[in-house]
Amino acid sequence: MNNNEDLITSWFASQSNADAARFPIGIGDDMAQVRAGEDGTLLVTTDMLLDGVHFDLQQCTLEEACYKAMAASLSDCAAMATVPVCAVVAVALPIEFGVEELKRVHAGITEAGERFNCKLIGGDITKWKEEAESFAINVTMLSKASGWHVPVRRSGAKAGDVICVTGLLGGSMHGKHLHFTPRVNEALVITKTANIHAMMDITDGLSADLNRICTQSRVGAMLEMEKLPISDAARKTDDPYYAVFNDGEDFELLFTLAPEEFEKLKDLDTIQITRIGTVTDTMKMQALWQDGRIVVVEPGGYDHL
Amino acid sequence: MNNNEDLITSWFASQSNADAARFPIGIGDDMAQVRAGEDGTLLVTTDMLLDGVHFDLQQCTLEEACYKAMAASLSDCAAMATVPVCAVVAVALPIEFGVEELKRVHAGITEAGERFNCKLIGGDITKWKEEAESFAINVTMLSKASGWHVPVRRSGAKAGDVICVTGLLGGSMHGKHLHFTPRVNEALVITKTANIHAMMDITDGLSADLNRICTQSRVGAMLEMEKLPISDAARKTDDPYYAVFNDGEDFELLFTLAPEEFEKLKDLDTIQITRIGTVTDTMKMQALWQDGRIVVVEPGGYDHL
Repeated sequence: MNNNEDLITSWFASQSNADAARFPIGIGDDMAQVRAGEDGTLLVTTDMLLDGVHFDLQQCTLEEACYKAMAASLSDCAAMATVPVCAVVAVALPIEFGVEELKRVHAGITEAGERFNCKLIGGDITKWKEEAESFAINVTMLSKASGWHVPVRRSGAKAGDVICVTGLLGGSMHGKHLHFTPRVNEALVITKTANIHAMMDITDGLSADLNRICTQSRVGAMLEMEKLPISDAARKTDDPYYAVFNDGEDFELLFTLAPEEFEKLKDLDTIQITRIGTVTDTMKMQALWQDGRIVVVEPGGYDHL
Repeated sequence: MNNNEDLITSWFASQSNADAARFPIGIGDDMAQVRAGEDGTLLVTTDMLLDGVHFDLQQCTLEEACYKAMAASLSDCAAMATVPVCAVVAVALPIEFGVEELKRVHAGITEAGERFNCKLIGGDITKWKEEAESFAINVTMLSKASGWHVPVRRSGAKAGDVICVTGLLGGSMHGKHLHFTPRVNEALVITKTANIHAMMDITDGLSADLNRICTQSRVGAMLEMEKLPISDAARKTDDPYYAVFNDGEDFELLFTLAPEEFEKLKDLDTIQITRIGTVTDTMKMQALWQDGRIVVVEPGGYDHL
């Protein structure tokens, strides 16, 4: 071995416990090989997270940042109710980073991945040349369809469906965005229990993400404002509803299903599921306040561009 | 559609010509879905390329940089003689970049991908917040095994094998590194013609990469110095042999095979293949000069760390 790169690649490979049946070729070759699901397909997602944008390494640890990067991709698997299989991770390191930092990157990645038996099977390590450049991490994750439900898309919502979310919304930036548990198992339980028409994870705020389901499904929505599950962090802000509608990175599930299917979810005592509204045929998003007022909801949320 | 991100995602989706049989779910959902190869597996590689490190946007175009990013991943597919299927691409944009730059990113990606019917099926767009931060692009590519040869690994070289390379080596930084043709089809033709024991692409210089084959195969190598195919760009340097051994980014194939299999390659008139040495059982790399001197070759090359 001639250089640091080969040494750290060997170390990463030595930490891998990927089994040969699922991964005939693992870390250390030009590509890793992954066995597909029973239906002969794999699903793929890629996410780039940047220091100063998605996390701030002056206020969180490198492990937390890398945990978040993996958890965000795991949340994409949850968004379609698929089973995470493996990830490849590329990092761009500031010039002062070395092997010690790479081991902390690895710790954050595996802490998130191992919770869901999602293996790190490859990656790429690069380093900036200029002082001013910041840490970036890119996670690409592969998942497979569950044995009982096709991957749930955004485009399947139907007028009359119940709109539901898991957990509590808003205020994620006050801490949750670094430590959330991706709703992988919740999505699998939900799709095993009821037939879900459309689903995604809430990453850009309820209004922006519900708008995506509405647009792709060619439907509208009527939200019931008093039913929205507002997080404590959002309640402490000046406008909790604004936080629910526009804060990003809740990483909760947003899904729709027929009313009779919704009844089947009522026994899932371990998962907080809230019915927040109804899919309509109006092609617009509206909100009903408790006093009877109806207002149009504009998709807000964080625009990455 | 509420924001630029949704608009550009729609535009990317509108440019996609991925067929539904190979890609049941394409751009615009939480994950894209990919059909695996006949053997039920896919291969995956990820590469991060940085402005100022892997290219310099003051000296090349954004299209060239993105072409290179895709071509480098295609070269990984070639390295194992696999068939490229699709890519997901994430970019980190400097703050002054907008939709126009994204379309140029798209142009570079598709210029490389379309040569090999490799589809762009998803991605992620992020933007730095600070002035000083530079463009980064991460390509993750999926490929499948060819119908006639298992993916060729680095670890299969055997003592007595012939060592070969395609093309010319050294001096890639003088231009080739931005405009090379990944050896995807050459790898497929070579593996269809002869049984290849070990292969990889030369990205970090012949000495570093041959060392990887030697290490992973637990063998050594004897190179014949006068046989090395030296590029014109390398010949113009003070030390052409140094350039061949240590310059990175040749993106040529390095492979080993039994001498009788090598004979089968002699009719491949359209591919420049050079026999540069022999695999040995010494566990070290050596070079034989024309005057009979034998010197030990230390793995050099570019250390990304």
